[in-house]
Amino acid sequence: MEKIKRNERMAAMMQILTSSPNRIFTLSHFCEMFDTAKSTVSEDVALLEKTVSRFSLGRLETVTGASGGVRYRPGGTEGQREFISGICSRLSHPDRVLPGGFLYYSDILSDPELTAGMGSLIAGASYSLLPDFVLTMETKGIPVAMMTARALGKPLVIARHSIKVYEGSAVNIPYVSASGGIETMSLSRRAVETGTKALIVDDFMRGGGTVNGMKALMREFDVDIVGVCVVLAVEEVDRRLVDNVRPLMLLGPIRDGEAPLVRPADWIK
Amino acid sequence: MEKIKRNERMAAMMQILTSSPNRIFTLSHFCEMFDTAKSTVSEDVALLEKTVSRFSLGRLETVTGASGGVRYRPGGTEGQREFISGICSRLSHPDRVLPGGFLYYSDILSDPELTAGMGSLIAGASYSLLPDFVLTMETKGIPVAMMTARALGKPLVIARHSIKVYEGSAVNIPYVSASGGIETMSLSRRAVETGTKALIVDDFMRGGGTVNGMKALMREFDVDIVGVCVVLAVEEVDRRLVDNVRPLMLLGPIRDGEAPLVRPADWIK
Repeated sequence: MEKIKRNERMAAMMQILTSSPNRIFTLSHFCEMFDTAKSTVSEDVALLEKTVSRFSLGRLETVTGASGGVRYRPGGTEGQREFISGICSRLSHPDRVLPGGFLYYSDILSDPELTAGMGSLIAGASYSLLPDFVLTMETKGIPVAMMTARALGKPLVIARHSIKVYEGSAVNIPYVSASGGIETMSLSRRAVETGTKALIVDDFMRGGGTVNGMKALMREFDVDIVGVCVVLAVEEVDRRLVDNVRPLMLLGPIRDGEAPLVRPADWIK
Repeated sequence: MEKIKRNERMAAMMQILTSSPNRIFTLSHFCEMFDTAKSTVSEDVALLEKTVSRFSLGRLETVTGASGGVRYRPGGTEGQREFISGICSRLSHPDRVLPGGFLYYSDILSDPELTAGMGSLIAGASYSLLPDFVLTMETKGIPVAMMTARALGKPLVIARHSIKVYEGSAVNIPYVSASGGIETMSLSRRAVETGTKALIVDDFMRGGGTVNGMKALMREFDVDIVGVCVVLAVEEVDRRLVDNVRPLMLLGPIRDGEAPLVRPADWIK
């Protein structure tokens, strides 16, 4: 086999690390792959760290200890506020106001680059919370929740509106929806292990009824909630049912024929 | 600024290309970023192509012409059949059989690495079909459909069971579900442009009622269906309503207490 050059090794390692965010790869893994000494791979990693930081491509971290190695984490880089501001500008358009004072933003929630960016941003703010999985409620928040799960390297769990026979035995809880009605939330008993930790990711929050429902659901599974992130939160609400929620964007009052006011949340730097 | 070395340029380019699959980056983009001559970036790209191919990391392609440049496409590499076989092994377990002869596989459908792999595989088989967007029906297929959309660099469109006020005016069509009942499928008028092309991605297919519904829905929008992929298809069905469907896996008859038979579809090499 032709000897593998440093630039080839570095490019391949970058692809592998980027494709499995937050997963720790041992240096031995790369030593075997490239048939190279550990000291050489260590130097490669040091150069990769410098490159990732120089071009604001996320973070490459060396983890020490028995299960140590190197991992890539997207997000936490420059330009996050500009990224969210860009989405806010797209949303702040009178055409997006629907009858009933609703904002049309489904397109934003299923654009792959935007959802990947939002997922990385949420993950970047949540790595230290050490969630075991990401929890969302169907349907619109699933893509962003999935991209968050991917950036965290953890599974996604989707709560549903009703029991499905093909999910097996399930836990059902009633909750008060945004419109004030009583709805049901359902989750398969197999979906979650007791004693684990969940990060809640949802697309929209007014009073927080759905988030509250997800919290009640997790209590049934004896699961701790380590954080709650929503893509868009209504800024002024009569009564907020939940605290400590991190929205990416805040939505002002919607008036027919006027551009909606959408701005990035203050915590996004 | 310290001069940027080839290994740094190649690693950064690889991260950028991998993070935006199927998006064409001009060489000028990288020339500006690295303050380097076009001939140098061309050499970098040639070396990257070699690296990607050598380690089976997907495909790096040079696109000529006015809007030319370089793009990265995941999938289409070695080990795809082994990857799907691995999922089949996980599914072929008696514990997964639910009352009513259903198979529990929601965990497989929302694991980030597995859905990313399945999305890349479906995208790899669909680039030549030139879809403008990926269409799925809520809920379970959304993560794989999203990962397919990401690998294609195209938006995802999600059809829903019922009209939602916050989606604006919608097109509704009735369709016959797997259980033989009549259900409704709904999609916002804003979600799709007429005259475009859709790739359908869904999680499960028995007779093909849901896929048929999505086809009927797209006719209302004057959208062509260029392909249909499903994660799991029942192998023996009395009457199949649709043709030319590419499943990733085939499911044999389910018997209580026995391991379900799940195998990779023949087209996956």
